[in-house]
Amino acid sequence: MKLTKEQQQEIKDLQSQDNKTKRVVAPQLESILFEAIPILDHGFVRVIDYMGDDTSIVQAARVSYGKGTKKVSTDSGLIKYLMRHWHSTPFEMCEIKYHIKLPIFIARQWIRHRTANVNEYSARYSILDKEFYLPSQENLAAQSKNNRQGRGEVLTGDQAEEVLNLLKSDAERTYDNYETMLNERYDGTVINEKKSGLARELARMNLTLNTYTQWYWKTDLLNLMNFLRLRADSHAQYEIRAYADVMLDTLKKWVPITFEAFMDYRVGGTEVSSKGKRVLKDLISGKNINIDSSGLSKREWNELMNAFDLDKKIVK
Amino acid sequence: MKLTKEQQQEIKDLQSQDNKTKRVVAPQLESILFEAIPILDHGFVRVIDYMGDDTSIVQAARVSYGKGTKKVSTDSGLIKYLMRHWHSTPFEMCEIKYHIKLPIFIARQWIRHRTANVNEYSARYSILDKEFYLPSQENLAAQSKNNRQGRGEVLTGDQAEEVLNLLKSDAERTYDNYETMLNERYDGTVINEKKSGLARELARMNLTLNTYTQWYWKTDLLNLMNFLRLRADSHAQYEIRAYADVMLDTLKKWVPITFEAFMDYRVGGTEVSSKGKRVLKDLISGKNINIDSSGLSKREWNELMNAFDLDKKIVK
Amino acid sequence: MKLTKEQQQEIKDLQSQDNKTKRVVAPQLESILFEAIPILDHGFVRVIDYMGDDTSIVQAARVSYGKGTKKVSTDSGLIKYLMRHWHSTPFEMCEIKYHIKLPIFIARQWIRHRTANVNEYSARYSILDKEFYLPSQENLAAQSKNNRQGRGEVLTGDQAEEVLNLLKSDAERTYDNYETMLNERYDGTVINEKKSGLARELARMNLTLNTYTQWYWKTDLLNLMNFLRLRADSHAQYEIRAYADVMLDTLKKWVPITFEAFMDYRVGGTEVSSKGKRVLKDLISGKNINIDSSGLSKREWNELMNAFDLDKKIVK
Amino acid sequence: MKLTKEQQQEIKDLQSQDNKTKRVVAPQLESILFEAIPILDHGFVRVIDYMGDDTSIVQAARVSYGKGTKKVSTDSGLIKYLMRHWHSTPFEMCEIKYHIKLPIFIARQWIRHRTANVNEYSARYSILDKEFYLPSQENLAAQSKNNRQGRGEVLTGDQAEEVLNLLKSDAERTYDNYETMLNERYDGTVINEKKSGLARELARMNLTLNTYTQWYWKTDLLNLMNFLRLRADSHAQYEIRAYADVMLDTLKKWVPITFEAFMDYRVGGTEVSSKGKRVLKDLISGKNINIDSSGLSKREWNELMNAFDLDKKIVK
Repeated sequence: MKLTKEQQQEIKDLQSQDNKTKRVVAPQLESILFEAIPILDHGFVRVIDYMGDDTSIVQAARVSYGKGTKKVSTDSGLIKYLMRHWHSTPFEMCEIKYHIKLPIFIARQWIRHRTANVNEYSARYSILDKEFYLPSQENLAAQSKNNRQGRGEVLTGDQAEEVLNLLKSDAERTYDNYETMLNERYDGTVINEKKSGLARELARMNLTLNTYTQWYWKTDLLNLMNFLRLRADSHAQYEIRAYADVMLDTLKKWVPITFEAFMDYRVGGTEVSSKGKRVLKDLISGKNINIDSSGLSKREWNELMNAFDLDKKIVK
Repeated sequence: MKLTKEQQQEIKDLQSQDNKTKRVVAPQLESILFEAIPILDHGFVRVIDYMGDDTSIVQAARVSYGKGTKKVSTDSGLIKYLMRHWHSTPFEMCEIKYHIKLPIFIARQWIRHRTANVNEYSARYSILDKEFYLPSQENLAAQSKNNRQGRGEVLTGDQAEEVLNLLKSDAERTYDNYETMLNERYDGTVINEKKSGLARELARMNLTLNTYTQWYWKTDLLNLMNFLRLRADSHAQYEIRAYADVMLDTLKKWVPITFEAFMDYRVGGTEVSSKGKRVLKDLISGKNINIDSSGLSKREWNELMNAFDLDKKIVK
Repeated sequence: MKLTKEQQQEIKDLQSQDNKTKRVVAPQLESILFEAIPILDHGFVRVIDYMGDDTSIVQAARVSYGKGTKKVSTDSGLIKYLMRHWHSTPFEMCEIKYHIKLPIFIARQWIRHRTANVNEYSARYSILDKEFYLPSQENLAAQSKNNRQGRGEVLTGDQAEEVLNLLKSDAERTYDNYETMLNERYDGTVINEKKSGLARELARMNLTLNTYTQWYWKTDLLNLMNFLRLRADSHAQYEIRAYADVMLDTLKKWVPITFEAFMDYRVGGTEVSSKGKRVLKDLISGKNINIDSSGLSKREWNELMNAFDLDKKIVK
Repeated sequence: MKLTKEQQQEIKDLQSQDNKTKRVVAPQLESILFEAIPILDHGFVRVIDYMGDDTSIVQAARVSYGKGTKKVSTDSGLIKYLMRHWHSTPFEMCEIKYHIKLPIFIARQWIRHRTANVNEYSARYSILDKEFYLPSQENLAAQSKNNRQGRGEVLTGDQAEEVLNLLKSDAERTYDNYETMLNERYDGTVINEKKSGLARELARMNLTLNTYTQWYWKTDLLNLMNFLRLRADSHAQYEIRAYADVMLDTLKKWVPITFEAFMDYRVGGTEVSSKGKRVLKDLISGKNINIDSSGLSKREWNELMNAFDLDKKIVK
């Protein structure tokens, strides 16, 4: 991620603002406001704006005339209660806005979270940056053998090199040809004064899916947590998880009490099915139980044993 | 609307906050933040929080590293363009949160705007205030003769008095019986120590629909304008219009450039159908035209003539 | 619930339709289509229309050219997998539409589920039916002592009678005065030819919250399950649970495989927090554990013990 | 668009269904159900399922026990009224589901319509088809000179050929390298038995944005019209308009009365701002008016003159 001098100056100008407000303020989040936090090789996350803090959740839950409750411990107890019992609307009362730079194939996963507001950089209107994602060596994983939707071993040696070379040369060539078709370089120089360029809305189709795009993305706290729960999970694709991990940190800086409850009840928690509950009860009461008597499928059994760190062999 | 001393103090405490922020600030809106603006006999609107201002719309539309554009005039031109061409997503980048007290039958209209976040005072959990809406004399309208969904002449004299008496006595009696069933007064005094009270979630069903409720209501700028366009309109029921009118003023204080474009393109504008366009073209070119040759239904014809202040008789 | 002869005839006419379609059909649901299933004293649920069945979920998940998979057992396995791993979008591919008659105070809870389409009977436009909800004796519960948002013991004897009398007489009186203000009876008879009636949009405010309203309510399968999960739960208010229970049955008739997975993973399942998982692991491995060493609050501890039917005393 | 024999057979099997239902049926739409209607070079639109017809709109608007009204003419009048006055909820009562094959860069525009349900073919899980969009000669437009977001003249001769060659060769090469990285051909043949393939979720990033994807897309009638209004408009990019045009035809087959009202009030209609209304009134009353006295910007003036086919020179 390289910011131009002009972009760096714009960010500094924003950060030098010193405005007065009667609104609640999240001091830790203020300290990183507008900062471009680097992700992957050219991406970033910037927190642009926010509304509310932990007390806003309590304030709305109580439909209060004032601010939250008097005591932080009371606020904390209520927030945990709301999280545990899936009360959703008070968490919708806080809002956050990010500026994000990310590869298009990740943007396509991301956009499926519909309860958010988005303004994306328009490739109908402007020329895209010459930046594309190339995985680092340790993220160059083979297809998983047992999970059709996952990664296995990391590729190494010649094959790794071959893959990286292909990704790099294809992205560069398609970008060069994008410029050729536009008859214009990224910096605005016309290539051949005698020619017209192909319409931008058409030329962009030649770019590869690892080309970077950027957008403003705004959502409420509830939907941010829904996003993070799925995308910071170990089953999420590494490249989107890299963003989710950084955003988890912004969540902590913004609403620390909510963050703690979220980690306990959502991220670190698990769900147990009706049949799974019976298995756990039997185990607690010392009964012999195995996969056959459990009524669970093999896949369900394994997932349950994994969730509770149980040795599949011992439990019989 | 009477606020208790405690409520007044809570509001003063909020207003005395003097926080520093790097976020953009809307100074005019700050000046009325938390204030309870009275509406109808016991209702109010309070602006509790907001995110963004006019420059945020431009900033998002351009997916910019800095703030809006350099010049206010450029921002203004872009905002007008976006409004005129129904670009919706940049307007979603601003958010506002209200605390509102309103009669239940109006709350039922209001809640149909789904793209908003709501926390309502819970009558399962708490006892509702002893406050109900009684229309002022000039708002006591008869059913319209020609519009099944509207108001006609104002009722006067004995009939007006009778209606007001009925509304008042029914609301008071049902509230008294609500307390009797709860075995508890609004202020928490138990009526009969030997009895249990009926569950709150049941007792509330005895209240009339003009009882006041209150909620926190949060929405983005686009959906706020959608709400105001419908509810500040002359066809909206007077009681909800009273709220919309006050909220229009908060819109002006918040995002003055957007407000102006909204008034020009949405509130003061009109839609013309394909057939209506032909009629207007004929009128401009001086052709004779009447309802029969227009292809419009009587209703459509009248709506078109009204929209353009045309005398239905002259145009033949 | 009394349907007029005309209404009964309209329902029969709908049921006598014998249309041909190439769309998938849910035979069990067809058998109760349009039927008014009675709920509470005057309410009902009617299934009006639906789109898709269990195979539609599989078809969409696979983005298939044909119908689901070849075998029911494969469909079933995939549906369970999708449910267990919170894949939501395939379940959105089925849609259902209900006609529901329900008391207004329940309608106000219901409408908070925003991801649904609603057309409600308009009391601005028409006169509401003279029907209001009166709880049966066994549902006349006192306020819970330990849960501010719940019910306790059932009221009996004189107090029960008093409550029912108050509810009945207040609803009847306010309805009578509604007619007086309208200067019109429910059946359309004008009361006093010399008077104008109060506008309907105003007169309705005199009605009590147990008055019945009705609406068309349409949602997708995912959001129907979200609704049922919350509203068929034992913590939901009895009156809305009565609707949810009947709708659970329509779910079973519509998509039997999905229903089974829903009951296992959602309705009968439970969530365990990060701390709760540690407690269960300790119990399974036979360790001594009590509330103090658990790190759980008293409330969390009790909820966990209840979820797994554990005796709070034995576990020490 | 080439369907495999197996796909063709699956479609035939669906079309040979002859199910009985009590639901309303749209006979014209039934006649094209499941059919793959070709669009662009490899794309298609298939109608997979639907719920409701024109009468369903009326039925919901009236919260009726039966079906629509008795007479088609009454239904038609009500539907026009609802459309003209922006009553939105009755149109949400009909639902339609499509299977669509489209280039990724168009899918990225399309997905911005959030109020829809989508299941997309997963390139994490499966290998994408070897099909990419190449514009036909007459759609190979240059960038517009006066509209940064539009097309100008059509490219011809050598330049056209060059562009097409670049698009074709880049798409082919990146696809071949996609297979190389996967170590697997589209048909499943492993390329080199001794190697592991790169994970699918990574390899896909090498594909160009004109690669075809496919999805199931389901929406309600209101949101379908919102989509078509924007995407069948002359300002929409040609490639998405090609889909919208075909879908307009499915709209006509599905709900012919609504289609007619939609074409009159939305597609063929126009909006006039507050200032624009003053200009039209002056023109009708024969006053002299020009751009300077109008208070309109040059752009607004031109848009108004264009909307009403007025000669900009004559009007002075």
